[in-house]
Amino acid sequence: MKSYQPAELFDGNGRLRPELAELPPRGDRRMSANPHANGGLLLRDLRLPNFRDYAVEVTVPGVATAEATRVMGRFLRDVMKLNLEARNFRLFSPDENNSNRWQDVLEVTNRAWVAQTLPWDDHLAPDGRVMEMLSEHQCQGWLEGYLLTGRHGFFSCYEAFIHIIDAMFNQHAKWLKVCNHIPWRRPIGSLNYLLSSHVWRQDHNGFSHQDPGFIDHVVNKKAEVVRVYLPPDANSLLSVTDHCLRSRNYINLVVAGKQPAPQWLTMDEAVKHCTAGLGIWEWASNDRGQEPDVVMACCGDVPTLETLAAVDLLHRHAPDLKIRVVNVVDLMTLQPASEHPHGLSDHDFDALFTIDKPIIFAFHGYPWLIHRLTYRRHGHDNIHVRGYKEEGTTTTPFDMCVLNDLDRFHLVGDVIDRVPNLAAKAAYAKQAIRDKLIEHKEYIDRYGDDMPEITGWTWGHEAAAPAGIRSTEADNV
Amino acid sequence: MKSYQPAELFDGNGRLRPELAELPPRGDRRMSANPHANGGLLLRDLRLPNFRDYAVEVTVPGVATAEATRVMGRFLRDVMKLNLEARNFRLFSPDENNSNRWQDVLEVTNRAWVAQTLPWDDHLAPDGRVMEMLSEHQCQGWLEGYLLTGRHGFFSCYEAFIHIIDAMFNQHAKWLKVCNHIPWRRPIGSLNYLLSSHVWRQDHNGFSHQDPGFIDHVVNKKAEVVRVYLPPDANSLLSVTDHCLRSRNYINLVVAGKQPAPQWLTMDEAVKHCTAGLGIWEWASNDRGQEPDVVMACCGDVPTLETLAAVDLLHRHAPDLKIRVVNVVDLMTLQPASEHPHGLSDHDFDALFTIDKPIIFAFHGYPWLIHRLTYRRHGHDNIHVRGYKEEGTTTTPFDMCVLNDLDRFHLVGDVIDRVPNLAAKAAYAKQAIRDKLIEHKEYIDRYGDDMPEITGWTWGHEAAAPAGIRSTEADNV
Repeated sequence: MKSYQPAELFDGNGRLRPELAELPPRGDRRMSANPHANGGLLLRDLRLPNFRDYAVEVTVPGVATAEATRVMGRFLRDVMKLNLEARNFRLFSPDENNSNRWQDVLEVTNRAWVAQTLPWDDHLAPDGRVMEMLSEHQCQGWLEGYLLTGRHGFFSCYEAFIHIIDAMFNQHAKWLKVCNHIPWRRPIGSLNYLLSSHVWRQDHNGFSHQDPGFIDHVVNKKAEVVRVYLPPDANSLLSVTDHCLRSRNYINLVVAGKQPAPQWLTMDEAVKHCTAGLGIWEWASNDRGQEPDVVMACCGDVPTLETLAAVDLLHRHAPDLKIRVVNVVDLMTLQPASEHPHGLSDHDFDALFTIDKPIIFAFHGYPWLIHRLTYRRHGHDNIHVRGYKEEGTTTTPFDMCVLNDLDRFHLVGDVIDRVPNLAAKAAYAKQAIRDKLIEHKEYIDRYGDDMPEITGWTWGHEAAAPAGIRSTEADNV
Repeated sequence: MKSYQPAELFDGNGRLRPELAELPPRGDRRMSANPHANGGLLLRDLRLPNFRDYAVEVTVPGVATAEATRVMGRFLRDVMKLNLEARNFRLFSPDENNSNRWQDVLEVTNRAWVAQTLPWDDHLAPDGRVMEMLSEHQCQGWLEGYLLTGRHGFFSCYEAFIHIIDAMFNQHAKWLKVCNHIPWRRPIGSLNYLLSSHVWRQDHNGFSHQDPGFIDHVVNKKAEVVRVYLPPDANSLLSVTDHCLRSRNYINLVVAGKQPAPQWLTMDEAVKHCTAGLGIWEWASNDRGQEPDVVMACCGDVPTLETLAAVDLLHRHAPDLKIRVVNVVDLMTLQPASEHPHGLSDHDFDALFTIDKPIIFAFHGYPWLIHRLTYRRHGHDNIHVRGYKEEGTTTTPFDMCVLNDLDRFHLVGDVIDRVPNLAAKAAYAKQAIRDKLIEHKEYIDRYGDDMPEITGWTWGHEAAAPAGIRSTEADNV
């Protein structure tokens, strides 16, 4: 120990020599008090354009088509533009920025790149604000550091591969949970994920690219920290995106598709729907003023499409069946209010879902997650969930639904099986469903694409309704 | 295209010249037919010592103490020894081999190391069969390649950090699922994980090291591929380990503690218990020949300890209360038989857990997983689960249980709250519990260690029973 020469450092009383005690920095210059280590101190609100200006026009539900994440990308482009001077907003992606349809943002900035550029390079620049590297770890680490030092960001990722950063997510979630109880820690921007290129639309990549389990991973963390949104269309995605960018100290998980898909809600409807987190879609329901015979619940864009197609078939062929369509955007509304701040009160949950009617729930992810969230609800024993049950391959979009029993025909079959007194009368309808599914398999084997009656279906348009069902005794259900 | 000089390769009819067609290898020499790419062809069974020879002697439940994973390590040492010549067994760990108590294996082999060694290096050698590197990714990748080419292995990891390889696990699970349906693919050795240094015993590392969620991640994958075991003591861990090493084409997840802990089962009992997957512990129950008033279920070593301590308190202070203790080793038994091949029939489940009595379930992981697995069971509405609810810090082992309401006192409180007609009579007992928990907090604040009545508790020994409870009106419960 003598080699440290303590006599030079301490006086005869063992006290640090004053000229040395003078050396360390004071106040904010101390490492522990560096404002960058308490990023909330430096945080400035983003300047946000009005997300309503980016709305897709929806005059009739399900007719207009849009790529939800591309619409989101236009909004993010202008968020980027409005905050270029403030230099406090970045996007992060493992080389999937354009694949996930955020390419419009490259109209106002570039990809960050400080090495040599070649003539054929695309939108690279040292001051680019889009951070791309084919490493989910790197993107996550960059974004965490960016948020912790008082800035804002959004991370877009293929749904299946976000599991790569499960362990990093854990630590950030734990950090936020602890900070919520440390008064001097100022709130920081939320860690926002967009998961796109999701499980239902891996037409070419197949089974290896299909895993919706990050949602399960996220909801294991403290309720005060995590939020999960599955907007069913572009306008609801815009509303959710605006909300995420304004929020603080959360981890916001948004799951949304990038493929052309029918649009359901006007901007006004979307704002109300997303603010509530879930609700009845009146235009798709026919139980107003009465008790429904069945509740058709859906969460996620593809499940919403299949549910509405199933409801359309039922309206047509069993017009007396009273159906209530409930769409869920904010997954956490399903949990009891005692478990999550967004949880619906039991009173409201019972009113929406009923306590005694069958609930056919089409879910984007693993089906048992819905049971986990709702097991305390009064109507739980009546909930029948369809979702991804780890069946997949390189196949058509509709076949992915069929493989996992989430398609419109299976959903109609579920209704027949569960609404009392329907099953006996519906033998012919069940047979028509079976035949239709065989027809589907034969068609995709032959053409490698979905049947025109599937791809061409639109809400409430008889002409596009599947002839096979239409021509059978299913009309008598 | 001409630059490829096709005239040299093809004859006038466009056919590949015969002398060139002769060049590619045939049979097993073809890359696609290399037996190493169908590892099951090369697989040889491990020579296994009799795991019963490594048993901890248990004459009375809960008196002997052992470190479960150290006992497992002795067995693995001899597995290693018996297969050294066959060179088809390796252990993998992110620098945690010894920390997880497998150090005895270094008596017969070394850590694999091909770079320079220095005098103070410990058990490094080029032919070492313990693969250590502080990278969960590397360990997982090594092991996958080792299994796919027809060998056997076991991966030990800190529980919280196995999430690092969530995405790699997914791909291996998907691969196994698909291979199960490809007849020419021969079965390979199972991918075996030991998760130790688990959530309940991170006394010094704290919150960042606490995450039991890999179990949730695993059970999302196809039931035919995944197995999850939580042996409650060393003898049951030995039985499970032997089973894992003999199995094929599974992913076996084993969660077990490394700290000195009470031993419950003789080797014979352990084999029967693990073979069934779950069962009544008769010696801890007092409901034989009658219906129980309450079922105390437990899964995992620490929850088993706390459950037994709670049952001990109840036997002592409410001797008329009929309690059935059910321990679960094989988590998949809880699922319906239609969902998992290990799932108990509803008939057996109902017989074990009853359909109408309160079930207090102490679980190692996130509590909602138990609800997810059992929501279809008849008695589900009566199941009340305690587990890790993401509360933790650097604290004592018992305080971790208290923070998450999994401790013996909370469990006794749960029984009082749920057994009909008990609550009214038990006001004094509830107050004693509350006081005991306050006493606990004061004690650990002062001494930084758990109270002697907690650390010194053993099953069925009055002397060590907590005086606070003993001296109150709790006796009248």
